[in-house]
Amino acid sequence: MTTTEAETDTDLTRARRAFRDDLVDAGLLIPSGIDGLYGRGAVFEDVISGIDALVVAAGAAAHGTEPKRLRFPPVFPRESFEKTDYIASFPNLTGAISTFTGDNKAHRALLADRESGSDWDHHLESAGTMLVSAACHPSYATLSGQLPNGGALLDVYGYCFRHEPAVDPARMQAFRMHEFVQVGTPDQAQRHREDWVPRGLQVLADLGLTAVDVPANDPFFGRAGKMLAANQLDENLKTELVVRIYGDLDDGTALVSCNCHRDHFGETFDITTSDGEVAHSACVGFGMERIALAMFATHGLDLSGWPASVHSRIPR
Amino acid sequence: MTTTEAETDTDLTRARRAFRDDLVDAGLLIPSGIDGLYGRGAVFEDVISGIDALVVAAGAAAHGTEPKRLRFPPVFPRESFEKTDYIASFPNLTGAISTFTGDNKAHRALLADRESGSDWDHHLESAGTMLVSAACHPSYATLSGQLPNGGALLDVYGYCFRHEPAVDPARMQAFRMHEFVQVGTPDQAQRHREDWVPRGLQVLADLGLTAVDVPANDPFFGRAGKMLAANQLDENLKTELVVRIYGDLDDGTALVSCNCHRDHFGETFDITTSDGEVAHSACVGFGMERIALAMFATHGLDLSGWPASVHSRIPR
Repeated sequence: MTTTEAETDTDLTRARRAFRDDLVDAGLLIPSGIDGLYGRGAVFEDVISGIDALVVAAGAAAHGTEPKRLRFPPVFPRESFEKTDYIASFPNLTGAISTFTGDNKAHRALLADRESGSDWDHHLESAGTMLVSAACHPSYATLSGQLPNGGALLDVYGYCFRHEPAVDPARMQAFRMHEFVQVGTPDQAQRHREDWVPRGLQVLADLGLTAVDVPANDPFFGRAGKMLAANQLDENLKTELVVRIYGDLDDGTALVSCNCHRDHFGETFDITTSDGEVAHSACVGFGMERIALAMFATHGLDLSGWPASVHSRIPR
Repeated sequence: MTTTEAETDTDLTRARRAFRDDLVDAGLLIPSGIDGLYGRGAVFEDVISGIDALVVAAGAAAHGTEPKRLRFPPVFPRESFEKTDYIASFPNLTGAISTFTGDNKAHRALLADRESGSDWDHHLESAGTMLVSAACHPSYATLSGQLPNGGALLDVYGYCFRHEPAVDPARMQAFRMHEFVQVGTPDQAQRHREDWVPRGLQVLADLGLTAVDVPANDPFFGRAGKMLAANQLDENLKTELVVRIYGDLDDGTALVSCNCHRDHFGETFDITTSDGEVAHSACVGFGMERIALAMFATHGLDLSGWPASVHSRIPR
């Protein structure tokens, strides 16, 4: 296992490595040779299914059948990605996709480089697509134009990619996020974010997890990013539901994120309310792998020892 | 919708475009602006779940609880990708992932290029990962070493990426494949492939689809690829279960693929049998989106008109 991040040998790093080793030994995660990329064993997937059933039930209790269920593949058009502005704020987390578009001769040149042990990426061209960084990103392009009265409410669930190799199993490069997204007036968006904080805490409580809600900021890149992060905190745009997987060695791990985007996506994706104003948006995102990992850290790696009220929620 | 492939205005192309337009109008597929990349509507996903329940049942009937269930994210290490040799045979279908690894100054340069409307890919570096091209690819690295008596039997299900933009909705760039993979002696592998042909036909029959099994070959790239394809056909290494989505306008669409890999993966991933021989492998792959599309083409876009025996298999 190559650790590409500079992680010093602190108590926290040791705790993270020990947790990962235990998860791998138990067959819950399958190492790939790269930090943050794992296969999932059968029991891990069953736990994910159990968590998702609770997330779905919370969505139904809050919104009935109103949310439009959409599922997107892990890849989406560069053109939509550009509108998220993610490359400006989180360039180091992105995944751009390239492919080979040449002829026989160009292919022979690629294979010759490969044969000689050289890098062969310069033989590739952009495929016009990007990996999805947040489950909701591909959904905004479907809303361009004027929203009906009441706005739009979406249920999206899919794989996300973030290039941040780390020893901590809770910081994966590829993970699933289940989101409920509200697009509409500033009030609707604000209320969506606020109402989902207690609902998210209840989902975690039902899984036997003790979470707290804390103001948070995204890891904006670079010097300009510091200002954006401070601004996000100041304006109280992001609330995270946090569980202490590693005790008091750190400030805890964010399992659920409740976000106000203001008019960011409304502006770049040309979405307007029924009144013709630029639409605001907000989302709640459940980090499925992180919730599962918090459950294993809290209840143990062997499901047979889990509290009955939690164990009964896991299928099979 | 941009058609990046040269597709002439034949009856077949018109039929494919009409089918896609109908799927989009019905909300089953959501266009992304790029051929072959679609969001999935709720009903489409319910149909996928119904199909998967049958695939799981067929696996259980054939193998009991023997198959090891593994789930992989859509991204895997370049090092494992190299061992599949996919870049030699299908370079035009691959997806390589790159990301930004620079500092503030390099980021400003990227943003300046972006601002001026220039391409910004040359500011990125390889992320050391590739998109998964076939669901089974990430599984072989977990088997390196000596197999137990009886070999290994895996159940894998995940998203695959192939860069082949097309009007035909049955040729997606991102789609799901559910596979049962046998790794072991040549006999075990051969038998796995052969036994799954009638099982696959039965799954399709239970979904109301009339399929036939035909010898097939993969779309190997270039001049050398023609020989590889002919060889694959000659040696009867690939059988596809085919349904005619477009009537007699083409030879049909492959919904399920049963493949003998000989010792290809055993060799490159260093997998040996309990006797110390290089392991052989075989897999059956159910193309989930294609099966769903064949059902919509066969039974209609409105589930309420589906035969009761088929409709009852779809949840919700």
